Amino acid sequence: MENYKQFLCVFTLALALGFVSVAFALAWVLHFREGLGWDGGAAEFNWHPLLMVIGFIFLQGIAIVVYRLPWTWRCSKQMMKLIHAGLHVLAFILAVISVVAVFDFHNAKNIPNMYSLHSWIGLAAVILYPAQIVMGIAVYLIPATPVYVRAALMPVHIYSGLFIFISVIATALMGITEKLIFSLKSPAYKDSPPEAVLVNVLGLLIAAFGGLVLWIVTRPSWKRPREEITQGVSNYSTSPEDIKVGTAMTSRTEQESSLETRRRNGKAEESG
Amino acid sequence: MENYKQFLCVFTLALALGFVSVAFALAWVLHFREGLGWDGGAAEFNWHPLLMVIGFIFLQGIAIVVYRLPWTWRCSKQMMKLIHAGLHVLAFILAVISVVAVFDFHNAKNIPNMYSLHSWIGLAAVILYPAQIVMGIAVYLIPATPVYVRAALMPVHIYSGLFIFISVIATALMGITEKLIFSLKSPAYKDSPPEAVLVNVLGLLIAAFGGLVLWIVTRPSWKRPREEITQGVSNYSTSPEDIKVGTAMTSRTEQESSLETRRRNGKAEESG
Repeated sequence: MENYKQFLCVFTLALALGFVSVAFALAWVLHFREGLGWDGGAAEFNWHPLLMVIGFIFLQGIAIVVYRLPWTWRCSKQMMKLIHAGLHVLAFILAVISVVAVFDFHNAKNIPNMYSLHSWIGLAAVILYPAQIVMGIAVYLIPATPVYVRAALMPVHIYSGLFIFISVIATALMGITEKLIFSLKSPAYKDSPPEAVLVNVLGLLIAAFGGLVLWIVTRPSWKRPREEITQGVSNYSTSPEDIKVGTAMTSRTEQESSLETRRRNGKAEESG
Repeated sequence: MENYKQFLCVFTLALALGFVSVAFALAWVLHFREGLGWDGGAAEFNWHPLLMVIGFIFLQGIAIVVYRLPWTWRCSKQMMKLIHAGLHVLAFILAVISVVAVFDFHNAKNIPNMYSLHSWIGLAAVILYPAQIVMGIAVYLIPATPVYVRAALMPVHIYSGLFIFISVIATALMGITEKLIFSLKSPAYKDSPPEAVLVNVLGLLIAAFGGLVLWIVTRPSWKRPREEITQGVSNYSTSPEDIKVGTAMTSRTEQESSLETRRRNGKAEESG
């Protein structure tokens, strides 16, 4: 891997930001709010931000970059696809529990559901996410799917995956804004009590985590090498999606340099 | 251009979403709110959402995709860089006026500034944006900047530009959330009055506009061809940034196909 040390720094920082975000979410609900419970009250609501940060943000982010971890390159591509899909499914389960918690809370308190922009974009993400997972499994995990279908859908898979991830983070920032306005009364949000500062910082941490995930996943030189190079020809080495982990926000020179490196690495690539 | 009709559809849709967003923002402040003025009151605040939608979202989005418009490919790259920079500068001026309006309003009403996550991320964007513009001008418009510096900084220029654009849209969604909670009292936001629905839809339009801009700018086949191909060798044709309009969220096969097309187009490319 080119710039291995740089990758290690950025990935470690992303991991640290993810863990600190979860710690901040825990501190918020346990120290400043009513703790955790499942009683239709505030303690049930509190699962909503906590599980969203753990599942829909942190786990989803890790699932997105999992192919980039160099120490996984000895694992088969099929195994990595299962891990990628598994992490996304886990993230989705946590997101669903998190949504159930907030609906329960609203219903118990006679607060309408689905009136805010946060809820509109959030629900869209919760619906699109399993669609993305099912599409991914159908196209890239079921061997029967023709190669040309896999290749044709890969740009959509990459784009929609990152678009959902970005939307989830934007939704979390809206949710933080809503919750701080609604729950801080005396002192109010505008008086910047410690809870407001802590949760604003949580918002910054989440945004920075998202930014690092996008940086990692869009560096062409940090891509997993093709199956042929890491393992020799395997059952899956002819699948075009083996070679199509997305790059985003990269320059043309970066792509060319990356492709040149791959070309020098071995003729086997040409068959991809 | 490959898939020219598809590009035309997506670009026209993005343009339409941008114009409809501006129309919705105008309808919001003129029909549902206090109109526009510069008196420290609510009418001055209203410039904030309006100018943000016009400048920091719509104009910035157009500035990002301006190199992709095929009917500009006969213009010199230097001219397009000036248009790209000019649109960003215009967007920044409108953003600054928009921020002055909200600070004036807060000061007149004794509302603290800079307490919300919206204001934190928004101010970060307003500070980073001119830094990005100045860096862009210094590196890509001043001919003295060495070629290797231009090439080395292009990935950062592309990534940070798109990161700022995404942050601005997330900030707008937080701002919409804040404003609807604060200003709708009877009926409240949770009762979904027409204003709440209109502004929620404005939020969706903005998010969809952002999504289309990201789609357009990340299709390798929609990139501006290198200067040599469109115009023959010019004064600027040896600048490496001529060939480094960003691609994001693209697959490896897309990149290779795009590079192959370019290779077939002429040997001149190799000198880029």
